Amino acid sequence: MKLSVCFIGAGNVATHLSKSLQKAGFQIQQIYSRTEESAAALANQLRTQYTTEITKIDTSADMFFVALKDSVIDKVLSDIRFKNKLLVHCSGSLSLSVLKNHSKNCAVFYPLQTFSKEREIDFKKVPVFIEANTKENEMQIEGIARKLSDTVLVANSEKRKILHISAVFACNFVNHFYTISAELLKTKDIPFEVVKPLILETAQKVQEMNPEEAQTGPAVRFDENIISSHLNELEHFQNYKELYNLISKSIFKHHKNE
Amino acid sequence: MKLSVCFIGAGNVATHLSKSLQKAGFQIQQIYSRTEESAAALANQLRTQYTTEITKIDTSADMFFVALKDSVIDKVLSDIRFKNKLLVHCSGSLSLSVLKNHSKNCAVFYPLQTFSKEREIDFKKVPVFIEANTKENEMQIEGIARKLSDTVLVANSEKRKILHISAVFACNFVNHFYTISAELLKTKDIPFEVVKPLILETAQKVQEMNPEEAQTGPAVRFDENIISSHLNELEHFQNYKELYNLISKSIFKHHKNE
Repeated sequence: MKLSVCFIGAGNVATHLSKSLQKAGFQIQQIYSRTEESAAALANQLRTQYTTEITKIDTSADMFFVALKDSVIDKVLSDIRFKNKLLVHCSGSLSLSVLKNHSKNCAVFYPLQTFSKEREIDFKKVPVFIEANTKENEMQIEGIARKLSDTVLVANSEKRKILHISAVFACNFVNHFYTISAELLKTKDIPFEVVKPLILETAQKVQEMNPEEAQTGPAVRFDENIISSHLNELEHFQNYKELYNLISKSIFKHHKNE
Repeated sequence: MKLSVCFIGAGNVATHLSKSLQKAGFQIQQIYSRTEESAAALANQLRTQYTTEITKIDTSADMFFVALKDSVIDKVLSDIRFKNKLLVHCSGSLSLSVLKNHSKNCAVFYPLQTFSKEREIDFKKVPVFIEANTKENEMQIEGIARKLSDTVLVANSEKRKILHISAVFACNFVNHFYTISAELLKTKDIPFEVVKPLILETAQKVQEMNPEEAQTGPAVRFDENIISSHLNELEHFQNYKELYNLISKSIFKHHKNE
């Protein structure tokens, strides 16, 4: 018999994870989201039901995946009686213990990837970090994770938080720099297109080289002329100027003893 | 007859560019570098000659490509008599005019890519930005650029500087964040391997989506709990903590009106 899963949350992570679980043979019983549009859109894709009311969450499901903003998780879970069903959160930075008040059986399933609803992801290639409050629950969440991904690793809450911070630098902040790059190009009517090969090569390089070796650019060459000319040019972008300065110094510090 | 080229510089850009020019049918006549090791290594790959003495640069060549650190270019060029041969620099941020004292025929050939000596690059996919001091020289440098790359664009020095700053954000600073990510992971003995799929997907996403839409993570979700927990965790990395704070605020500012 298929194991049934309720999803609490209908954002990027919930969307990709629920679709992958469904493909792997799980029954997605219900989607909860505060926002009807998100709940309906995901439920529609999965051909399942949804609710926007916490009290109507179907607690007959075998397990519950929580993929909400960290700051609201505790509040939302307080209103649901999980009856010791397996309760799983997907957060990088929340400790496992936040689930303990809500069910005797709890686990973490943290997929280390950037998910956008409209973009396909091969879940097999997403590293998944798991943790559980008992050996039995760990085996269960590990079994589930292995059905979805080729890379499943056990990590406690402390390790997972560092993983999350590392991901914020390697992905979220990186993407923001793509945004800054696009914004600067736009001031001279240059299309973002032209930096795309550079962006891709920068990411591909560190698949094979270590990032310290892969570093190029004025800061690592200590090319002060360029750095000061760039800082001048950024006069009208105080925020970016400050970032430019800080990061150049950080690169410099890393490489000065080479 | 093959056009002959001397390279002044034997770093990452000189290495890739000279090899690509040779493949495209140019004769690489000589390599100059202050550092014998670099000059010899590149000359050896190209089966050509090298010198480490400025006075021995072979001024009989048809053209000269300068790929040096910006801060030393003017000094080095002052010691060479180019006799109005085509003199080309490869810098993003130096204006064309720095060459004017050294030859009547000058041009810029700026390849927008990150080059490391030990890594192969398909030069066809590298956007090249060109500029020259006369229409004739522009045609000549454009012809050369088109033999190497599928994407050749004319950009004046002002545009090129913005291109360079954008590249610093989209590549050099991004790569430094990969370094920070690796460093943070190392504190918990987690291999850099685990963030590689994330790094690649982050770069692949913006090949198709615009980076503002592609943004994910705690800052764009305004998830203050996570942000403050990450800042606490970075207590022993003051420099990274400051960066984390600044960039999160910048992401927040970009997205608050969505």
